[in-house]
Amino acid sequence: MNFLGRQLIKLNIGKDAYIITNALIKRKFGDLISRNLKKSGLKVKFKTVPDTEKSKSITRSAAIIKDLAAFDRQKRLFIVALGGGVIGDLAGFVASIYKRGVPFVQIPTTLLAQVDSSIGGKTAVDLEIGKNLVGSFYQPRLVFSDVEFLKTLGRRQLCAGLAEVIKYGLIKDRALFALMEKDYKKVLSFNPGVLDQIVIRCSRIKAKVVSLDEKEERGLRTILNFGHTIGHAIEASGGYKGYNHGEAVALGILVAADISAYCRLTKRSVVERIEKLFSSLSLPTKIKKVSFCKIINAHYHDKKFIGRKNRFVLLSGIGKTKIVEDVPLEIIKKALRNRF
Amino acid sequence: MNFLGRQLIKLNIGKDAYIITNALIKRKFGDLISRNLKKSGLKVKFKTVPDTEKSKSITRSAAIIKDLAAFDRQKRLFIVALGGGVIGDLAGFVASIYKRGVPFVQIPTTLLAQVDSSIGGKTAVDLEIGKNLVGSFYQPRLVFSDVEFLKTLGRRQLCAGLAEVIKYGLIKDRALFALMEKDYKKVLSFNPGVLDQIVIRCSRIKAKVVSLDEKEERGLRTILNFGHTIGHAIEASGGYKGYNHGEAVALGILVAADISAYCRLTKRSVVERIEKLFSSLSLPTKIKKVSFCKIINAHYHDKKFIGRKNRFVLLSGIGKTKIVEDVPLEIIKKALRNRF
Repeated sequence: MNFLGRQLIKLNIGKDAYIITNALIKRKFGDLISRNLKKSGLKVKFKTVPDTEKSKSITRSAAIIKDLAAFDRQKRLFIVALGGGVIGDLAGFVASIYKRGVPFVQIPTTLLAQVDSSIGGKTAVDLEIGKNLVGSFYQPRLVFSDVEFLKTLGRRQLCAGLAEVIKYGLIKDRALFALMEKDYKKVLSFNPGVLDQIVIRCSRIKAKVVSLDEKEERGLRTILNFGHTIGHAIEASGGYKGYNHGEAVALGILVAADISAYCRLTKRSVVERIEKLFSSLSLPTKIKKVSFCKIINAHYHDKKFIGRKNRFVLLSGIGKTKIVEDVPLEIIKKALRNRF
Repeated sequence: MNFLGRQLIKLNIGKDAYIITNALIKRKFGDLISRNLKKSGLKVKFKTVPDTEKSKSITRSAAIIKDLAAFDRQKRLFIVALGGGVIGDLAGFVASIYKRGVPFVQIPTTLLAQVDSSIGGKTAVDLEIGKNLVGSFYQPRLVFSDVEFLKTLGRRQLCAGLAEVIKYGLIKDRALFALMEKDYKKVLSFNPGVLDQIVIRCSRIKAKVVSLDEKEERGLRTILNFGHTIGHAIEASGGYKGYNHGEAVALGILVAADISAYCRLTKRSVVERIEKLFSSLSLPTKIKKVSFCKIINAHYHDKKFIGRKNRFVLLSGIGKTKIVEDVPLEIIKKALRNRF
């Protein structure tokens, strides 16, 4: 965190930092960050928003823009998202539409945001009729991750992030999966060395995949969707209340792994290794809060479906994937039933 | 207009056309366009909005998105702006943020939109504290101009567009300026051959300049700002009521031309030719609706000013420009006083 001011100056993106954050992060890190930035000659203004999905609205965006326009008298403004995924999505969207785009910096403070949502340039707010229906592709000029922030997380939130970490291991990085198996206890005790490793490895994977297909036009980003087809269906059918995103993804990963085994793409033992690792991290391996039928119904609405065909990212081993279209419904149901 | 459906099919951008327009255009061309598109197998929905600056709001954008999301059941939507600059700005903004961007087509129906605002990818809505403060750079997949639409324009609106046409002549196209001098009567009687010529020549210039500097990062778009520094100041200090955009730009062009003459960049006779042409088109050559002091005050707020320096696009002949920084205030005042 001590390098933040210097890094920002090096980017030459402006002098007035408008930092969108939540009350908890501001209380814990506000003074430190403010001092650090001021030492580098930057002007600082904090704007706190509630860190709930409800903050991701067009109305909230408009209110923030009104506020920041008043701060932007000298026309040397840049916007900083200091928080988790909600704040990153909201601040990124605001940065992308204010004056047709002003410089934007991500300082993710949750594990999920550090390894996933802060990288890739997707910004979004919700409509009543659906999540993330409004947004833009807008790349941050800097993603500044510090595992120090992760100490603010409760264990459940940390583990939710770890579900995405394990996803990266499964799709692209065998060694990362092995590291998680070996060192999960260190992770749970916030060992900074191991957390650094994790964040760096995941960020590299995400950045590489995204840079090959920035606007999701070539289908290369699909791989990142591993575990998310059923994961999203679980989240949505629980009204985004029962399971958090990471927990739903964990369950989705298990269903996808089961499908992979049924399709003989991977060995049964792989599913068991994943299951064991999730259990060690108190991530769910059985579905208790949502009904089978609701999930099956919700999965038809996956936005990644092309026409009427389904499309799954499956495993062909740890660290290797295969994209399969038109997986028979019976296999999906069989795999899902396993989780009840 | 008969080629529209076929053109859209060729683009392969979707099957459901969501057309944002105003009541007048819908009444005059709605059936024709609808039939043409349906013949090509497209589904059509019109959304009319009042064609006033007030429509360019975040609230209006949100309402439109809610409406179009309901139309977008089959996920094969594209958005069409059928109207003038207001509708183009609003529809383009909506297209750029719905689902992080859906295909967008411009069908400009005013001369100003055909030669200027529909080309270049700038979208915008207003905030209470200022115009165009929210928006994006988002290129249309097609700009479909038909001079047939121009017959809906009143003479004052047509002439407002001609001020921008003359701007293109002055900055880049000596022959276009000569054409306007020779054939202005044909233009005023809506001669389609001459109007076609004008729209084609201007569109080419705009497209070329924009393609060299899409996001205004290299200063190459500055040239398009000829006449706009003082033009914007005149518009803003009249509260966007006294003069319309084209009229304000005409006055701004005369001030810039006078400054050019005072700086000995161009001959006095150039100013006189411009003045004569504007008079023939009933464009103002003297400022009557706004005070001298208000304009001088407003011009300090020009968003194109860098730091404290002013920066003017000046003429070094017809069809040639020179960008000059730090024009002495006395010269600006002297040139402006000429217009009272």
